[in-house]
Amino acid sequence: MNSFSVTILGSSSALPTSYRFPTSQVVRLNEQLFLVDCGEGTQIQLRKFHFKLGRINHIFISHLHGDHIFGLPGLISSLALYGKKGELHIYAHSDLQMMMEGMMKFMNEVPELTVKYHPLNFKRSSIVFEDKKLRVTSFPVKHRISCCGFLFQELPGDRHLNRQAIEKYNIPPSQRQNIKKGADWLLEDGTTVPNTAITLPSDAPRSYAFCTDTLFRKEIVPIVAGADLLYHEATFAADLEELARKTFHTTSIQAAEIARMAQVKKLVIGHFSSRYKDVVPLVEEARTIFPETYAANDGDCFDL
Amino acid sequence: MNSFSVTILGSSSALPTSYRFPTSQVVRLNEQLFLVDCGEGTQIQLRKFHFKLGRINHIFISHLHGDHIFGLPGLISSLALYGKKGELHIYAHSDLQMMMEGMMKFMNEVPELTVKYHPLNFKRSSIVFEDKKLRVTSFPVKHRISCCGFLFQELPGDRHLNRQAIEKYNIPPSQRQNIKKGADWLLEDGTTVPNTAITLPSDAPRSYAFCTDTLFRKEIVPIVAGADLLYHEATFAADLEELARKTFHTTSIQAAEIARMAQVKKLVIGHFSSRYKDVVPLVEEARTIFPETYAANDGDCFDL
Repeated sequence: MNSFSVTILGSSSALPTSYRFPTSQVVRLNEQLFLVDCGEGTQIQLRKFHFKLGRINHIFISHLHGDHIFGLPGLISSLALYGKKGELHIYAHSDLQMMMEGMMKFMNEVPELTVKYHPLNFKRSSIVFEDKKLRVTSFPVKHRISCCGFLFQELPGDRHLNRQAIEKYNIPPSQRQNIKKGADWLLEDGTTVPNTAITLPSDAPRSYAFCTDTLFRKEIVPIVAGADLLYHEATFAADLEELARKTFHTTSIQAAEIARMAQVKKLVIGHFSSRYKDVVPLVEEARTIFPETYAANDGDCFDL
Repeated sequence: MNSFSVTILGSSSALPTSYRFPTSQVVRLNEQLFLVDCGEGTQIQLRKFHFKLGRINHIFISHLHGDHIFGLPGLISSLALYGKKGELHIYAHSDLQMMMEGMMKFMNEVPELTVKYHPLNFKRSSIVFEDKKLRVTSFPVKHRISCCGFLFQELPGDRHLNRQAIEKYNIPPSQRQNIKKGADWLLEDGTTVPNTAITLPSDAPRSYAFCTDTLFRKEIVPIVAGADLLYHEATFAADLEELARKTFHTTSIQAAEIARMAQVKKLVIGHFSSRYKDVVPLVEEARTIFPETYAANDGDCFDL
């Protein structure tokens, strides 16, 4: 099975604290690293948690508030200093390019790295990235400014060989790759052995949904439904629901409601207001609605 | 005596490491905090080392490479979020304003904070700040792009009362403030007691000099001469002198040469290349020339 995990690099809201950097996460699928948001200090956290910066080729940016983007200039500068070549893809609001091009004048080195900006669609769900193993879909959430969540869906892998059947029919190694991909097997007498008789189902594809910054928004339930892991912001505890509404954020209880309605397997809450020295009460509140709730802390790694 | 100190917030060169953030320092004179350079993560380090962000009203920026400025947007955003009002003064190359105004669009809140930019002179030494207690002078150093060092000079304080003389002449408390400022004392018989007979000298004014990023440059010696503390970059060890020259940086030995020629009291070296996991060898090299050499490490505080 592919290794698929999410590591929290930053879990604060707009004001970082001594313990929480601003928002950033690494989604890891085998050796590929995908960055989600890039608050100030992201490159420092990446080093601290032993990620190889050069493995990042795709960065997904939910929205253009500073606490989600101010780490980009430093990260890109460092990638260029390390001699990274080729293309770095950034999926974000179209205004980001203008901002970054102003700042990139202040880089130390002339980069051999090309940054490609891909504008997000804030009106409807859209596939923004797809390769053989993974699809990333953006979907609108509701914040003061245009903002997207992201759904990372593993694509179905090859079926597994049924070792006993393979031996029974004496299928040579050269043919096994086709069979994993779904081919039937033809016996010498002309009989067809259907693929399902010689293979076992592929691993169930997993999915990860990232939702911040946003109001409580039922519209996302069908999009994130059944996810193995949902990260949902919970900037405030339940008693500050009014403040959450006013600032276009979510409470712990509301995040848990989304998780319950979407029947996800696990909920991670984060983007905590700096007023909470201890976030255990927020997790406890959320667990009254959705027991499989966990707090995001910088450095935490969640395996899917 | 006023408390006067320098705290290292970041001591790496362009590439931060797990232990060293990019360049930034706090110069503290009593309750006033002056920031020198503002690499990525400066606001995080300020919190970690228990500085009150709101006390920063003046920021001095040596040059516009990313590792000296990429912390500014986050710091200013946070100051605005904290509700800081009034003026924040930034002394830097005139291009900084253009860059910052592009980025400040992405701040979370409309600030009641006005950022005032003061362009530096990269041709000659210039007083950039002065109040009753402190004068800050910029002076050109030699890097790939325009770059300044900064000299922080405490201004002479009041003289101290000579308690015995004060009692002898029975000088009332209401007159003592004038005497501290230099006034003589008139006896009833018309005789003048000179100020020096009733006071003791004020504390010797102290000074701190900050020099990074720069080639080895003898021209700075008279400017930093006699400083209580000199921070000088030492990006490389002595064996990489050629690389230092090529990249417009300084070696440990060269930094020590400057300290020796300028007869400063103490030298702190920093801005270490990320290749050095252990900087003790650089300090040891420098001590062969200038024994009072210390390494800058994030969080170190040097009292003057």
